[in-house]
Amino acid sequence: MSRAEKAQLAMMLEVCAYPKPGNVDRCHDYSDTRLEHFLASTILSRPAFDAAEKAGGRVGSLIREAVLATNTHSGGNTHFGAFILLFPLVIGGDIEGARRVVAGTDVTDAIEFYAAFGLTQVRMGKSDDLDVNDPASVAAIRERGMTLADIMAYSAPRDMVAREWTNGFALTRRCADLLHAHGCGRQAIVAAFLDLLATEPDTFIAKKHGAEVAERTMRCAAEVRDGKQDLAAFDAECVADGINPGSIADITIAGIYVALGEGWQWDC
Amino acid sequence: MSRAEKAQLAMMLEVCAYPKPGNVDRCHDYSDTRLEHFLASTILSRPAFDAAEKAGGRVGSLIREAVLATNTHSGGNTHFGAFILLFPLVIGGDIEGARRVVAGTDVTDAIEFYAAFGLTQVRMGKSDDLDVNDPASVAAIRERGMTLADIMAYSAPRDMVAREWTNGFALTRRCADLLHAHGCGRQAIVAAFLDLLATEPDTFIAKKHGAEVAERTMRCAAEVRDGKQDLAAFDAECVADGINPGSIADITIAGIYVALGEGWQWDC
Repeated sequence: MSRAEKAQLAMMLEVCAYPKPGNVDRCHDYSDTRLEHFLASTILSRPAFDAAEKAGGRVGSLIREAVLATNTHSGGNTHFGAFILLFPLVIGGDIEGARRVVAGTDVTDAIEFYAAFGLTQVRMGKSDDLDVNDPASVAAIRERGMTLADIMAYSAPRDMVAREWTNGFALTRRCADLLHAHGCGRQAIVAAFLDLLATEPDTFIAKKHGAEVAERTMRCAAEVRDGKQDLAAFDAECVADGINPGSIADITIAGIYVALGEGWQWDC
Repeated sequence: MSRAEKAQLAMMLEVCAYPKPGNVDRCHDYSDTRLEHFLASTILSRPAFDAAEKAGGRVGSLIREAVLATNTHSGGNTHFGAFILLFPLVIGGDIEGARRVVAGTDVTDAIEFYAAFGLTQVRMGKSDDLDVNDPASVAAIRERGMTLADIMAYSAPRDMVAREWTNGFALTRRCADLLHAHGCGRQAIVAAFLDLLATEPDTFIAKKHGAEVAERTMRCAAEVRDGKQDLAAFDAECVADGINPGSIADITIAGIYVALGEGWQWDC
């Protein structure tokens, strides 16, 4: 199986796994973002992943290419965070390779990434002065000589996906380890997802609903994991309140990619 | 969107649509074949579809390539019938082009197809003397100078997918027309599927359970379509009895591919 195919399988397996509290999964759609949107994005990102695997190429422009290819449906951005993690991994092969890709990013990667970002409706943190819709931001990036790794470091305090670029893909590594520990297939994905949710406040939730809600979601997930609360009830509650742990879903996708490369079995 | 991507979207949209009586869908797995198997096959068939679109190539060897690429999981054959319909369509672009591909098949296509067939666990009709596991069959094909179109004509009385090759993709055309008539998105797929099921005995069911069960399933589907029986109850009954209309699912995939090429909207 090619790296591109592992990336696609990871995206497909993550969205199909259920029950995943609050997120689109096999049993839940949101009214504007449905299972089919995630799977269409999975299919349509293939040429960008193929290019990343075969030609290497620059991570900034590859993310932009993937966003352009997958922005064709009405479901909004489905995999922007996943792309941020998967492209270094697919170019580099594994976590070690991805770290080298991160270390090798340049100003052009940063500018291309900003162009990709501008195509999405992804939320920036309130403190961001580098507004993707502000042409002055590109000038500022050039002037300061910021690489894409610098941009991620700048966002890292408020964004756990960006943080992966700064800490050597620590949660991606943890997710892969959790998958190995939980055995094979769909249930391992759900268990790993819940473990992450129970130990890390999701920054997508924090940006959307505030840090307090992210912390509370984490505590609820811990209760579910420890058998003190019902998973289905927690899921229903999250869905009703629009609390979707999108960043942990992105990290789970990256973790599945890494685990597949280490022989983890999705099919059992 | 490329033809390869339309073919993949068609496979994805068909399996996600629900409720589809008896088949794997978003809400149902069979114990040995699950949603993820269908979606993995959808992802892994991409290189063969890309080759079909870009290089044209021979339909027999392309079907073999797709079966080889998708036989890697434990879910058994998921898309063999769909490949039989999709490859002429992707090589030729549309139904008219697919007819030309069919008319241009040769003995080598037939032999390659038999090799692909031998890799699957697809049932042959009882009257087949061309056994895919019998080397003498290949000798017989050569001796008789049978093209792949001849093989399909030979199977057509017992197999509605093969029959599409002999009648100019008549049900594929009908399915695409039904999709246009039923509007956009998931519900149109379910409605078109039910229309076909209510008017055509599924030959996959006939091979597995006999012609009588296929006829009865058709009559039940007509009652559901006409509002005289409950869809969910019919679905549950089919699943409990292992009655899965796999051939009509294959034709639905081909119909979605054609409809997408004619501007039908999956995303609404």
